[in-house]
Amino acid sequence: MSPNMKKSATTVLALIIVFVAGGLAHASQNAISAATQECLDCHTIVTPGIVADWQKSRHAQTTPQQALALPAIERRISTDQIDAPLKSVVVGCAECHTMNPQGHEQDRYEHNGFVIHTVVSPTDCASCHPVEVEDFSHNLMSQAYGNLMDNPVYKVMVDNTNGLATFTGTGFHHEGADDMSNADSCLACHGTIVQVTGMETRETQMGDMDFPLLSNWPNAGVGRINPDGSKGACASCHMRHQFSIEVARKPYTCAECHKGPDVPAFKVYSVSVHGNIQKSVDKYWDYTAVPWTVGEDFTAPTCATCHASELVNSEGEILAKRSHRMNDRIPWRIFGLPYAHPHPVSANTTTIVNKAGLTLPTELSGELVQSALISAEEMAQRQERMEKVCSGCHAQQWVKGHFSRLDRSIETSNHMTLQATQILSTAWQEGLAQGLPQGANPFDEALEMKWIEQWLFYGNSVRFATAMGGVDYGVFADGRWTQARNLQEMGDYLKFLRASQPEK
Amino acid sequence: MSPNMKKSATTVLALIIVFVAGGLAHASQNAISAATQECLDCHTIVTPGIVADWQKSRHAQTTPQQALALPAIERRISTDQIDAPLKSVVVGCAECHTMNPQGHEQDRYEHNGFVIHTVVSPTDCASCHPVEVEDFSHNLMSQAYGNLMDNPVYKVMVDNTNGLATFTGTGFHHEGADDMSNADSCLACHGTIVQVTGMETRETQMGDMDFPLLSNWPNAGVGRINPDGSKGACASCHMRHQFSIEVARKPYTCAECHKGPDVPAFKVYSVSVHGNIQKSVDKYWDYTAVPWTVGEDFTAPTCATCHASELVNSEGEILAKRSHRMNDRIPWRIFGLPYAHPHPVSANTTTIVNKAGLTLPTELSGELVQSALISAEEMAQRQERMEKVCSGCHAQQWVKGHFSRLDRSIETSNHMTLQATQILSTAWQEGLAQGLPQGANPFDEALEMKWIEQWLFYGNSVRFATAMGGVDYGVFADGRWTQARNLQEMGDYLKFLRASQPEK
Amino acid sequence: MSPNMKKSATTVLALIIVFVAGGLAHASQNAISAATQECLDCHTIVTPGIVADWQKSRHAQTTPQQALALPAIERRISTDQIDAPLKSVVVGCAECHTMNPQGHEQDRYEHNGFVIHTVVSPTDCASCHPVEVEDFSHNLMSQAYGNLMDNPVYKVMVDNTNGLATFTGTGFHHEGADDMSNADSCLACHGTIVQVTGMETRETQMGDMDFPLLSNWPNAGVGRINPDGSKGACASCHMRHQFSIEVARKPYTCAECHKGPDVPAFKVYSVSVHGNIQKSVDKYWDYTAVPWTVGEDFTAPTCATCHASELVNSEGEILAKRSHRMNDRIPWRIFGLPYAHPHPVSANTTTIVNKAGLTLPTELSGELVQSALISAEEMAQRQERMEKVCSGCHAQQWVKGHFSRLDRSIETSNHMTLQATQILSTAWQEGLAQGLPQGANPFDEALEMKWIEQWLFYGNSVRFATAMGGVDYGVFADGRWTQARNLQEMGDYLKFLRASQPEK
Repeated sequence: MSPNMKKSATTVLALIIVFVAGGLAHASQNAISAATQECLDCHTIVTPGIVADWQKSRHAQTTPQQALALPAIERRISTDQIDAPLKSVVVGCAECHTMNPQGHEQDRYEHNGFVIHTVVSPTDCASCHPVEVEDFSHNLMSQAYGNLMDNPVYKVMVDNTNGLATFTGTGFHHEGADDMSNADSCLACHGTIVQVTGMETRETQMGDMDFPLLSNWPNAGVGRINPDGSKGACASCHMRHQFSIEVARKPYTCAECHKGPDVPAFKVYSVSVHGNIQKSVDKYWDYTAVPWTVGEDFTAPTCATCHASELVNSEGEILAKRSHRMNDRIPWRIFGLPYAHPHPVSANTTTIVNKAGLTLPTELSGELVQSALISAEEMAQRQERMEKVCSGCHAQQWVKGHFSRLDRSIETSNHMTLQATQILSTAWQEGLAQGLPQGANPFDEALEMKWIEQWLFYGNSVRFATAMGGVDYGVFADGRWTQARNLQEMGDYLKFLRASQPEK
Repeated sequence: MSPNMKKSATTVLALIIVFVAGGLAHASQNAISAATQECLDCHTIVTPGIVADWQKSRHAQTTPQQALALPAIERRISTDQIDAPLKSVVVGCAECHTMNPQGHEQDRYEHNGFVIHTVVSPTDCASCHPVEVEDFSHNLMSQAYGNLMDNPVYKVMVDNTNGLATFTGTGFHHEGADDMSNADSCLACHGTIVQVTGMETRETQMGDMDFPLLSNWPNAGVGRINPDGSKGACASCHMRHQFSIEVARKPYTCAECHKGPDVPAFKVYSVSVHGNIQKSVDKYWDYTAVPWTVGEDFTAPTCATCHASELVNSEGEILAKRSHRMNDRIPWRIFGLPYAHPHPVSANTTTIVNKAGLTLPTELSGELVQSALISAEEMAQRQERMEKVCSGCHAQQWVKGHFSRLDRSIETSNHMTLQATQILSTAWQEGLAQGLPQGANPFDEALEMKWIEQWLFYGNSVRFATAMGGVDYGVFADGRWTQARNLQEMGDYLKFLRASQPEK
Repeated sequence: MSPNMKKSATTVLALIIVFVAGGLAHASQNAISAATQECLDCHTIVTPGIVADWQKSRHAQTTPQQALALPAIERRISTDQIDAPLKSVVVGCAECHTMNPQGHEQDRYEHNGFVIHTVVSPTDCASCHPVEVEDFSHNLMSQAYGNLMDNPVYKVMVDNTNGLATFTGTGFHHEGADDMSNADSCLACHGTIVQVTGMETRETQMGDMDFPLLSNWPNAGVGRINPDGSKGACASCHMRHQFSIEVARKPYTCAECHKGPDVPAFKVYSVSVHGNIQKSVDKYWDYTAVPWTVGEDFTAPTCATCHASELVNSEGEILAKRSHRMNDRIPWRIFGLPYAHPHPVSANTTTIVNKAGLTLPTELSGELVQSALISAEEMAQRQERMEKVCSGCHAQQWVKGHFSRLDRSIETSNHMTLQATQILSTAWQEGLAQGLPQGANPFDEALEMKWIEQWLFYGNSVRFATAMGGVDYGVFADGRWTQARNLQEMGDYLKFLRASQPEK
């Protein structure tokens, strides 16, 4: 009998005892509010999946009062005080969807005798989870809408990616992207602007009813602009309506937005030693324990372990504090921009302007816009916090060796991007492509798109592969090999463009 | 103790009681036929894996009589009556492999005193599952062989993909594909033609024995042409020899054929919210329940949920009927053809001919061959059925918003395909590639293959990403970005081809 | 109740009984050595994850004496005799990290009163697992460092992949790759050279301490050159510090190095019938059983099943012997070289030189360097061993049919590589690229890299897809389609290069 099997047997035995002894007692303590009960009466029929899902949630099993009774380090809520009547009922439909009516002036509406709002926002969640919501407001993700759409450089990329191109016989006519395509593409992850644009009467199983019309709906992007003006959607990672910590801690959640060639974090993780162990033996892990004990509750990190979770060792000593900023342990920004660079100071990056007047944290040469980026000292502190996590399982030289490779990986991938930039500049100078010097769209021609892939796909992939130890993605799968090949192809492309220019 | 843990504890307790009380009694009821017992006597040694696998199956545990005793909605068989002796024995080797000897005139053979056939066909399965077999015959998949190989347009693509090309110094000589390469490539999913081509004596552990020689064997493609003339292979999705409903309901089954760039359904699913939830918490689900209760048995859909399974709400009311046609809830065909279009009326699509004489449901301009495609009314009905499934967990505006994006996604991806078509047409007109106007193979040159990828890979990917909410595949991973880049590259390719033409 | 559920219930019942009866007795037998206890006293605090992980291991639960008491076929150790004091204590920190001090002259050091070494090598593991270590020394993987870095042809590829290229305005200047980039790329899987380069004092939680400096550290590549001169790292597949057979038998372990486009084994497996069944129902499997019973312990093979594990049928008869050579059942080498060819005789392939003087097992025309490759007779024997594995679940014609497709797949993909080679040769002859005839780097230009992808990515993918039945990767996902398209593009590239040559 393996230790894991023994653990299972013990667990089962314990569960049986607990269940028989505590089952009914537990249930009777968890009062459902009268309002929530009314919701349930209809929605058990109208949207049975949501109701059944919620019934499996911790929200449905626990009152805030019970949650507060736990020792601080085991709590999943971060407020100190919750007033009646909220504190003594489980967190049900009405508790969230009627929360803060004053803040929902724009989107509240009458629904069967209740004033409710469809979009539960971070401000609502802050009633019980204020620290997490405040933290998240300093997370780049909370600004994901504006950082993309209000950044003129990136807006052009969005338009070129999602907008229509029409072949004219000699070239292409480009149209900007429409809202619906954007919502279905970039903004599915970055978040849309959700506003009430009117009311509508709909036929339902319960007869005709009035509902607000929401713009750019549905959406659960991390940087969603909510009708109440708040930013973000907690449900991006904490799936409705179980809001399970288990789901948020699993890498599949992050994979929803971090798997593509532009940010291959999940793919890299999945071929790393960490990802292997997670897939191979996580059936023996406890993804729900708070705090999370290294080596006992889990034997390899998931995304959450390194970037967000509160971790303790077997003695209960804290290795890492919980962080919904998610950059407390990240000195570098290694993806999404032409060059890897120190993390930006502010979550809102639209105010960063380089010498050339572009909203970018570096020049096209790679030189940093230092004033907008964290200091070397701050980088060192973040590095130290991350190394503390690693030290749960790795000796010092292992950790130092790992991170010195990341430094080199940043250096070499930035070098390879610079070469691609110089090829593109040459093409612009010779008029073989129409870009910045011509005041033209710098992102819509094939050579320009190959340049973007050099950093957005391959440079990123190399750095992620190093940072997270998923080596395939640092070599042949969009890694150093592809980085080298794309550069060679850009060189030849320049020649081909020259050869295909009309004779003058 | 989480609700899921409580559920587990209850389940375990119940199982223990059931096991102790009912174990032996149950076993004694399940009579194995004498014929099957004879099979088992040898095959436990000859192919132990199959036997052990079958022993874990429901087939090995249940007699048709027991199956019929269940309430209709819980039944896994769709016949009303099964005669003796079949009804009172479990479904073993002999029951299936000696079924319908009259239908197996072509492939039956004598084997140790029994007349058996190797290939169990849908016609055999129909003895207990007639509705499913009839349904499946209206599924495009049942015609997957002919729809590919008997369609002249597609046959050329198959030949070009699997056939050999030989460099002549100035160009290429192409050979058609051989049977073995086809069977190992396209036809592994589409199905091969399996016929008895003779008999052969083989050395076995039991001495020399005679067996029929089967052409293009092995194969388990969905459109396999069986020796008895029937089409399809139930074992494509219901893996031998457990034939487990759990396997068929898991997305990994569909992934066998629906993961590549031509039909990235599984990849899209895996980065969708649905796919995340499935991977994260499906250990708490019951994949074997019939019917399947939304929110209780599962908390996010798999492929089967939306396209095939019988679904009920917590009250036992049916949300969706079981369908092995699998298009009851699909108004559009979004992949495999140059343009997305309304679903074809008939599962056999080889009779659809456009104005230009090509076996395609649209012109090369995208115009529909309306007569072969389902009506707007039928599309609306199918849409409604699908929305009913969504409504298990989503409110009306959510669902409507989702599907209006699909409309737009179809529109924009079709537009981008049309532009690529016009570039290709230009090349053909200028003689830069040899295609339809020249009466030449339209699919064998690089520019032609880039055109195919525009719709077969990128247009498809954009639409799948929208339809199933796996956004990465609608942006950078073969999505809108790649669609835009490929179009630009085709534009430049045209220029490069012009520049590299020999001087006249 | 399904058979699987019944099995679970029985298992649970059995476990409860075993646990209650045997728990304490078992624990008291497993003596931890005094030395290991001293390690644990500090490392529970310093690296709690490692300690907790080890505590879950079989090593922590079993003494060699207990292991030897098992029937031979159930043993996980392959020595016959282990002397005191080792035999009567569990395998803890000190047992491995102080093992064979005489062999660790280079890397042993004093650490809190013990002479230890950081890198536990195969030679150390051989104390209990000598057969596996000896087997592994005949595995190509054990030579993975030298076979790459000491092969001049491959060394150039490594330099070109990982080294920096600098755009000069007209072409590129190439630098060789640095050690750190190599360690982070190719050598992460192939292994680095780990040597002690000095000593260093480090600040630790326990005060200042001295440690050896290890070159190219961390690394766990399969061909790692260890400080004690041995080759390999058992922990590549048997993850520290659980060294779980379950992990080694799961495909995710192999995926760490066998997932990229150059060796897509895991991707192919994941869309195969086998991979589907594994993902769908492996929760019912026993990955820890030794020996491993086909159909009972598992119902579809993982990588280990076909290539390494000891397999028995339900009668306990051996279907396949355990092999850490991993080529006992592999007649062909289908990846990594321009042409698929019979497996090399020796694990060290750096001595294979073709007529043209290149360290390759074939000419550039595909002709074999026969003397270095196994004979047809040896191939047949290996084939027979593999077929024995298949026969656990598949009838003879199925198996034969499968492997005749592999023969064809090797033939066609080799043909397609030859065509690509001829295009490249033409380019070299015409001076459109600078390669072998010019005595220049043959792997650094775009056309050359397209040639490499023809075999390293697409030819490999086609063959893997056939060999392991994951068809998507034989068609559109880097398969026959991509093989055909890349060839066409190479043909056009030749034209474009000609057209863009400067006038003479």
